Amino acid sequence: MTKAQMQFSPVCPLPISQYPQILMAHGGGGKLMHDLIESMIVPAFSNPLLGERHDGAVFEVGPARMAFTTDSYVVKPMFFPGGDIGSLAVNGTVNDLAMCGARPLYLSAGFIIEEGLETETLWNVVNSMKRAADAAHVALVTGDTKVVDRGKGDGLFINTAGVGVIDHEFTIGPRQVRPSDAVILSGDIGRHGIAIMAAREGLEFETAIESDCAPLASLVRGLINDGIEIHCMRDLTRGGLASALVEIAEAGRVGISIEEALIPVREDVRGACEILGFDPLYLANEGRFVLFVPEAHAERAVEMMNERTYGEGATRIGTVGELSGVVLKSRIGAARIVEMFTGEQLPRIC
Amino acid sequence: MTKAQMQFSPVCPLPISQYPQILMAHGGGGKLMHDLIESMIVPAFSNPLLGERHDGAVFEVGPARMAFTTDSYVVKPMFFPGGDIGSLAVNGTVNDLAMCGARPLYLSAGFIIEEGLETETLWNVVNSMKRAADAAHVALVTGDTKVVDRGKGDGLFINTAGVGVIDHEFTIGPRQVRPSDAVILSGDIGRHGIAIMAAREGLEFETAIESDCAPLASLVRGLINDGIEIHCMRDLTRGGLASALVEIAEAGRVGISIEEALIPVREDVRGACEILGFDPLYLANEGRFVLFVPEAHAERAVEMMNERTYGEGATRIGTVGELSGVVLKSRIGAARIVEMFTGEQLPRIC
Repeated sequence: MTKAQMQFSPVCPLPISQYPQILMAHGGGGKLMHDLIESMIVPAFSNPLLGERHDGAVFEVGPARMAFTTDSYVVKPMFFPGGDIGSLAVNGTVNDLAMCGARPLYLSAGFIIEEGLETETLWNVVNSMKRAADAAHVALVTGDTKVVDRGKGDGLFINTAGVGVIDHEFTIGPRQVRPSDAVILSGDIGRHGIAIMAAREGLEFETAIESDCAPLASLVRGLINDGIEIHCMRDLTRGGLASALVEIAEAGRVGISIEEALIPVREDVRGACEILGFDPLYLANEGRFVLFVPEAHAERAVEMMNERTYGEGATRIGTVGELSGVVLKSRIGAARIVEMFTGEQLPRIC
Repeated sequence: MTKAQMQFSPVCPLPISQYPQILMAHGGGGKLMHDLIESMIVPAFSNPLLGERHDGAVFEVGPARMAFTTDSYVVKPMFFPGGDIGSLAVNGTVNDLAMCGARPLYLSAGFIIEEGLETETLWNVVNSMKRAADAAHVALVTGDTKVVDRGKGDGLFINTAGVGVIDHEFTIGPRQVRPSDAVILSGDIGRHGIAIMAAREGLEFETAIESDCAPLASLVRGLINDGIEIHCMRDLTRGGLASALVEIAEAGRVGISIEEALIPVREDVRGACEILGFDPLYLANEGRFVLFVPEAHAERAVEMMNERTYGEGATRIGTVGELSGVVLKSRIGAARIVEMFTGEQLPRIC
């Protein structure tokens, strides 16, 4: 039994909240979700692993170091250009394990099905999961199926949890980030968010914008095998690049400065953002991540990523400093403080 | 990479199904759910671990043997006599690990919240999970929160996944069951199902019927430490004792005969069943399990269980034979073949 498990656990009163009811924004990946987790979930279950604010928990079992993570997927619509709820549910959890520096081994799948879902739709999603699992070299080994009444769900929700093994000596997490570390982005941002939005609203762009949904474990593994000393990684899902950087700066107690001109955004994505009023920094991605490496490893890391699948657009976007918070140097040279989104830009993106 | 992961995986056509849409009964723990899993999930993800038809997957990581399992919880109502969705979500997954013979270590929690849920309700559930986790000596180490639009969920759904370690030499699972094994039931059955039904329908009985929701890992651990050679265990959730026995008989390719007169059902539960038209054999339990042990260990196992918390009503209810299927010898001496429920007795019981 660990120390955390032995703690005395009184029932505490509800933390003072200005929101007596849960809003959509509490699931949006921004400030409200962050506050909900920090004020309710982390204190209630207080333990050192949860306190790491990582994409997953890392612990030891005998001589093995392992990672464990979970995500539920409620994306709307279920099928979108470049993916579907099934591939998303596999890749999302594979990526959370990869962000812990783990080699993904096994996934679980929990299906919450709304009565009346077409059996063929379920079959298509299950097969998409199978293909995604094969591509990511993970096995789906245990699962559960629940059905809820018509009108009490939305077609299909999927939860996946994953376990992986960490077979290297690095410690990877927000607390490892150091001043002067380079901030590297694995490719262009914003495609997943725009693809979902377009599918949901029936929008058509001149060029098809597909989700970037992809498994990142092989790319990360390549970097580790090449000896790149990764301090921290985070995939850019809900809340996008901006929220990921703010969270890491806060958890790692460092400042991060990035340059807008260095952040790759495809022209069509930028155009769609302008029309729809979105900021690409906050758009969700499902196959992109940031990593923090020592200055001395930065150039080599970018080169190596560009030689590998899903890392072809990798580029350095900034540097870690001593001060707190995230600062964006804009194209015209002005400095802007980057904060978490308070509301939500796009609900049910994953 | 295991052999299973390297298999070629074509997209197969939808297996012929007489149900073009998912029905509530597909989640009821009976024949339809069994068919759905056997016809769609198991073939799609075909791998040896999933093929074990166990409560969780068992695999090796280095020298450690581990178990991994998941369940989603959609119980309605969220609070009921003897528990709530939070304690259920912890105990259910703890019990699935225990049924694999594992010592539960870590849990994940995925919350799918319907917009508009009272923040205080979430807080109460989170604290219930915390108390249940402490009682079961597990730590909740990673999680996820999603919010869905009003009318697209039902207050709160929770998924938990769990990992545990198997630190003994026994292999436990349906395929280990042998003819002449004793079938032992850990206590009276049916209370969880009736408690949920009463809470849902506002029924009142002379005596309060509380759910049996409880963590079983310590009880199982005690048996293993005492050297009881457990061949198989299964907790009696959806589908109840009947479905668990049918599944084990099928997966273990054995026959099982049980005696109705030996199966403990509380008087008030039996009365409620008669009024409501339920068969206690199919009612869900959340703190009860069956175990299969060699004849020579049966008496000692029952004695030991009766000395321990949550095992006080343990009793032998039958024997494993050579033939297939499950046969119930009724109070008046007639033999009845026990089958899985085709429809569903009680939806959203867990």
